[in-house]
Amino acid sequence: MTTLASDQLPELLRQKADQLRIHSIRATTKAGSGHPTSCCSAADIVATLFFSIMRFDPKNPRNPDNDRFVLSKGHAAPLLYAAWAEAGLFDPKQLLELRTLDSDLEGHPTPRLPFVDMATGSLGQGLSVCVGIALNNKYLDKTSARTYVVLGDGESVEGSVWEAADIARHFQLDNLCGVVDINRLGQSDPTMLEHNLTTYQARWEGFGWHTICVEGHNHAELLKAFAEATQTSTKPTMILAKTFKGKGIPFAEDHPNWHGKPLNPQQAEEVITVLSQSLPSPAYTFSIALPKTVQRAKSAIQPLPAPKYEATDMVATREAFGEALAQLGAVNPLVVGLDADVKNSTYTDKFGKRFPDRFFENFIAEQNMVGAAAGLAACGKIPFAATFACFLTRAYDFIRMAAISQSNIKLMGSHVGVSIGEDGPSQMGLEDLAMMAAQPGVAVLYPSDAMCAYRLVETMANHKGMVYMRTSRPKTPILYGAEEFFTIGGSKVLRQSAKDQLTIVAAGVTVFEALKAYDQLQTAGITVRIIDLYSVAPIDVATLQQAAKAANNRFITVEDHYLHGGIGDAVLSALAGDGVRLTKMGIHQIPHSGKPDQLLDHYGISARAIAEKVKQLVQV
Amino acid sequence: MTTLASDQLPELLRQKADQLRIHSIRATTKAGSGHPTSCCSAADIVATLFFSIMRFDPKNPRNPDNDRFVLSKGHAAPLLYAAWAEAGLFDPKQLLELRTLDSDLEGHPTPRLPFVDMATGSLGQGLSVCVGIALNNKYLDKTSARTYVVLGDGESVEGSVWEAADIARHFQLDNLCGVVDINRLGQSDPTMLEHNLTTYQARWEGFGWHTICVEGHNHAELLKAFAEATQTSTKPTMILAKTFKGKGIPFAEDHPNWHGKPLNPQQAEEVITVLSQSLPSPAYTFSIALPKTVQRAKSAIQPLPAPKYEATDMVATREAFGEALAQLGAVNPLVVGLDADVKNSTYTDKFGKRFPDRFFENFIAEQNMVGAAAGLAACGKIPFAATFACFLTRAYDFIRMAAISQSNIKLMGSHVGVSIGEDGPSQMGLEDLAMMAAQPGVAVLYPSDAMCAYRLVETMANHKGMVYMRTSRPKTPILYGAEEFFTIGGSKVLRQSAKDQLTIVAAGVTVFEALKAYDQLQTAGITVRIIDLYSVAPIDVATLQQAAKAANNRFITVEDHYLHGGIGDAVLSALAGDGVRLTKMGIHQIPHSGKPDQLLDHYGISARAIAEKVKQLVQV
Repeated sequence: MTTLASDQLPELLRQKADQLRIHSIRATTKAGSGHPTSCCSAADIVATLFFSIMRFDPKNPRNPDNDRFVLSKGHAAPLLYAAWAEAGLFDPKQLLELRTLDSDLEGHPTPRLPFVDMATGSLGQGLSVCVGIALNNKYLDKTSARTYVVLGDGESVEGSVWEAADIARHFQLDNLCGVVDINRLGQSDPTMLEHNLTTYQARWEGFGWHTICVEGHNHAELLKAFAEATQTSTKPTMILAKTFKGKGIPFAEDHPNWHGKPLNPQQAEEVITVLSQSLPSPAYTFSIALPKTVQRAKSAIQPLPAPKYEATDMVATREAFGEALAQLGAVNPLVVGLDADVKNSTYTDKFGKRFPDRFFENFIAEQNMVGAAAGLAACGKIPFAATFACFLTRAYDFIRMAAISQSNIKLMGSHVGVSIGEDGPSQMGLEDLAMMAAQPGVAVLYPSDAMCAYRLVETMANHKGMVYMRTSRPKTPILYGAEEFFTIGGSKVLRQSAKDQLTIVAAGVTVFEALKAYDQLQTAGITVRIIDLYSVAPIDVATLQQAAKAANNRFITVEDHYLHGGIGDAVLSALAGDGVRLTKMGIHQIPHSGKPDQLLDHYGISARAIAEKVKQLVQV
Repeated sequence: MTTLASDQLPELLRQKADQLRIHSIRATTKAGSGHPTSCCSAADIVATLFFSIMRFDPKNPRNPDNDRFVLSKGHAAPLLYAAWAEAGLFDPKQLLELRTLDSDLEGHPTPRLPFVDMATGSLGQGLSVCVGIALNNKYLDKTSARTYVVLGDGESVEGSVWEAADIARHFQLDNLCGVVDINRLGQSDPTMLEHNLTTYQARWEGFGWHTICVEGHNHAELLKAFAEATQTSTKPTMILAKTFKGKGIPFAEDHPNWHGKPLNPQQAEEVITVLSQSLPSPAYTFSIALPKTVQRAKSAIQPLPAPKYEATDMVATREAFGEALAQLGAVNPLVVGLDADVKNSTYTDKFGKRFPDRFFENFIAEQNMVGAAAGLAACGKIPFAATFACFLTRAYDFIRMAAISQSNIKLMGSHVGVSIGEDGPSQMGLEDLAMMAAQPGVAVLYPSDAMCAYRLVETMANHKGMVYMRTSRPKTPILYGAEEFFTIGGSKVLRQSAKDQLTIVAAGVTVFEALKAYDQLQTAGITVRIIDLYSVAPIDVATLQQAAKAANNRFITVEDHYLHGGIGDAVLSALAGDGVRLTKMGIHQIPHSGKPDQLLDHYGISARAIAEKVKQLVQV
C-alpha cells in the first residue's frame, strides 16, 4: 500500500466501483438471474462509502462500533456482497455461488450473512431500520458510529420512507446519511420523477433533511457530499444522486426493459473485458479506517419483581403489560420502548415516563415503529413496540421482513376483538393471531389475566426471537397467583375432573366466559375441562392431547378473533393427527359497534353461547 | 328560505358549525364514549363543505353524480353523522343512537351507512380512497363531480398519505381537494409539527399539490380556499387549516388529555347552553346545490371467451390471469386494472396495453393501490389490483378496512411460495392465505393451472365482494379442458377410486407434485385420492367429507405456504367436527434462495416428499 494523494482518490474509487460492477455482472450471469443493472447504478456510491467513508472492521461486520450500511434497494444484493468481498471479509470467488441453496449470498440480503442487519428486498424498509440503528447510536450507546443507507428512487414512493424521514428529522438523527440512487427507471416503467432532482430535493427538505444533489457516478462529488453530511448537525442528510441504471453496460445503460435481467455469458464477457481494460493489476489496496472502540457498560439483568395484584383486583391485560414493561425497564437496561401515539391506551406511557431516554415516540407511523424496532434489535437492544393489534396490520410487511430476519423484536397488540365495544370494527384486532402465527419462529402469547400478562413480559424479553403479545381492553378478574409460572409454549388447565365430557380451549376474555359457562353447566350436571391457551404458538400439544384422551376427543375453542387462523385452527393443527372433533366459536362476520358484553353475546362467544353449544354437543 | 347576501354566509355557516358541535357533544355524551374534541376542530370545515361547497343530493347519498366527501379522520364520525342529519338525510334525533348495536351510526364510519364510501378509523386511508374516486370521475366517468377529504394532522405522519399524494399529483387530480385539520394535538402528545403550517405547506408543495393555508375556523377564508381549489387545474389542492382541538368547548379547547373523551352530562349541558345562545331559532335553511346529472352508458357485459390453451402447453397461472384480465376488459367495461410497478411480472401489462384508459399505475405504492381500488369500487367499477403476494402484506391494513367495507375489489398476488426460487424469502408470498382467509367474506382462490386461473378471473368479476387470487411464478402443465367449470367454493377431484387409502389435498404447484406422487405410489400399489382445492375460502366441505368417508378419514394437505393459516388449516377447519386425521405439509421455516424444484424438495413439498409421507402413513 502506498500513500495516497487526495486527488488520486476519485480515480481509485472509480476502479473499485468497476470491480464491483464486474463482480455483480459475473455473479448474476452465473446465477442466470438477478439485477445487474440495479447494481451498476449504485456501484460508485457503494465503492465510495466502503472504501473511503465508512469506518468499520472488514473482518468483523458484527463489531458494534462499525459504521453501519443498509442496502434498502435489496435487489442490488450482488453489489453489497461484492463490496464486502473486496473489503476482505471473504474470498471474491464465493460471489459466484450467488442465489444457490448452498450459499447465504441469497437473491436479496438476509441476516444469515453477518453483515446484514435486516433483510431487505421488500422496498422502502431500509430507512426505518437505519432510524432504529441511528437512534441506538445517538441516544443509547452514544457512539460516533454513523449509519448509511442506499435507497432506490422507485422505492421512494413507498409511504414508509416518508414515515422514517419524519421520525429521523424529529429525533435530529445527524448520524444518519442516506443516498437515493436516482437511476430514473423502475421495474416496469420510468419512475414518476425520473431525473427531476429538484423535486426530490424539495420533498426531502420539506421533511426537514439536509440535502445534497450530486452526479452519482462522480466520486469527487460523492466524497464531498459524504464529508458535508458528516459535518451537518441536528439534521439527517439525504444525498440525491443522479445515476444511470446499467452504468458501465453500454447496451443496457439508461435503457428500459433491463430490470432484473442478467447478461447472457457472451454479453457479460464483452462488458467485463471492456471494464477490465481500465483496471490496473494488481488493484490498489485501500486501507479501511477501523472504528473507534466505545466502552459499553455490561448490562446486569435482574429478575422482574413479582406482580402485586390482589385476588380481587380487576385489571386489563394491556395495563399489566404496561406495568410489567415499566418494571422491566428498571431491571433490564437493554429494554427499549416504542409507541405510535397510543401509549396512553397500551400503557407503554408507564415505561416512557420512567425511562424517557429509552422510549421512542413514532407518532402515527406503525411501519416505522416496527422497522426502527428491528434496527434497535440489530444493535443488541430488546425493543418492545406496542399499538392496537389492528394497527399492526399496517406494519405486516415489516413484521414479515423482521421474521425473515429472525429479529429480536417484541410486539404488543392491544384492543383485540369485539370486547373493545363501541369504537367498532376498524379498531378491533381480529386477524392478529392469523397474521402473527403464520410467521415461522414467532411466539404468539395471549394472556387472560394481569398476572399472566405481567409474567410473560419478562419471558418475552428473555426469549431470543420475535414474540407477539395480544392484550385486551376490558378490565378482567385475576385468575392466577403472583408466583404462578408461565412459559412460551405452555397452557393452564383451569378446570378438570375425571368425568369431563369435553374440553373448552379459550384465551383472553373468553377464558372468563368459559369459566362462567362452566358454572352454569355444573348446575346442569355437565362437567367440562377448561384450558387457558395463553401461548398460541408454540402450542402446548401434550396438555391438549391429554385433554383429548380424558374428555372424549372433543373440543370447543372460543376466541375473540375471526374464525380463520386463530386459536381454533392452532388447536386443530396441534391435534390434526389425533382424530379429534372440534367446534370453533369465534367472530364469523364483520362486527358492529356496541357494548362489550352485548357484542360478546351477539357474536356468540359469551358464557351463554358457550354453555348452549356444550349442551348441544353433549346431547349428540 | 330567504335570498342570501354573500356577506351573510360566513355567519350562517358559523351557526351551522356550532349546531354540528352541539350534535357531536350531545351524541358522544349520551354514548359515554367518542371524540367530541376531534369533531369540534373540524366542524367549520365540514359545515362549509356540506352547506356551501358540495353539490349533492342530501336525500340520495348514493347518487353517483354527487360530490363525494370522505372523513379520513374517522374518529370524528359524530360530526359526519350530524352533517348528513342537518342536510336532511335523517332525523337528527337518531344521532343520539350513536355507538349502539341497533344503529349504524357506529363509533367510526362504515359503509353500512349509505353516505360512507369506505370505512375509516384506521388513519391515513381516506386520501387513497379519494384518489380512486377522483380517478373514476376524471378518467372513467368524466364527470365534473368533485371529491373532498378531511384528514387529521396526526394521520399525516402515516406514509400511505404520501403515497396517495404522489399518485394524485401524477394523475393531475384537480377534481380532488383535501383539508388537513391541523388541530395540533394527537392522541397521546402534541403532533410533531403542531401549528407549523409552513412545513406542512412545504411538504405538500414538494409533492406537487396546490396548497392554501387558512384559519380553519374562519368561514370566509374556507369559502375562498374551496373556490380557489375548484379553479385550480392540473393539480390537486390541499387546504392546510389551522384549527383548535375542542374549539367551542372552553375548558377543552387546545388542551391535551381531551382526546377520545366525551364530556360528562353536566359539562355537555353547560357547553351546549352557551353554543345555543348564538343560534337563531328557527335555524337558517341552506339550499344545497344538486349535482349535475351525467348520462352514463349502460354497461353491456358479455361472457369471457373460452381460454385457448393447448393440452400440451406450459403456462404460469399468473400469465393466465393476465391474459384473462385483458380479455375480460373487452367484454366488461366496468373492469379496471391497478398495478404497483410489477405489471410485467403479474401480466397486468396485457390489460394495461389494451386498455390504457382503464389502467392505473401506482408505482411502488401498494397501500395506495388497494385504497384507490376501494375508491374505484365505491364508484361501481370492478377494480383488479395485482402485485407479488408478499407485497400485499404491505397493504394489509387497507385490505382489512376494505373487508370491513365489504368492498368489491379483486386482488391478485403472484409469485407465491418457495417455487419462485432464486429471489429468496423476501419475494415469496407465504402468509397470504392466512391473511386473506382471516377476513370474513373474502373469497380466496388458488388455481393450479392456466385454464382454472383464466376461468376464475371472470368468476371474480361477477362475484359481489372481495376476492383474492393467488398465482404462481413457474410455468405449469394444463390440467383442465377449456370447457371445465369452476366456482367460488368448488374443488376438483383429480384422482379417485374405490380403494383410496387417503386423500391428498393440494393447490397451485403442489397439485402437480401430488399427481407425480400419485404415479409413484400407484407403482408401489398404493392408491390415493387427489383434490385440487382451487377455492380455499369458501371451501368445498361436501367433497372433503365424501373423501373422508371414502378414504379412511385420512388426509394429507400439501401447500407452498407457511403451515399456519393456509390450506391445511382450512381443510382441518372444514372437517373439524368429523374426527379426521390430517397431516399438514408446508413450509415450516424461513426459506432460502435456490432453484424452484430444489426448494420444493428441500422444504418437503415435492412429489418425493409426498410419496414418502403417504408410505409412512399407510403403514401405520
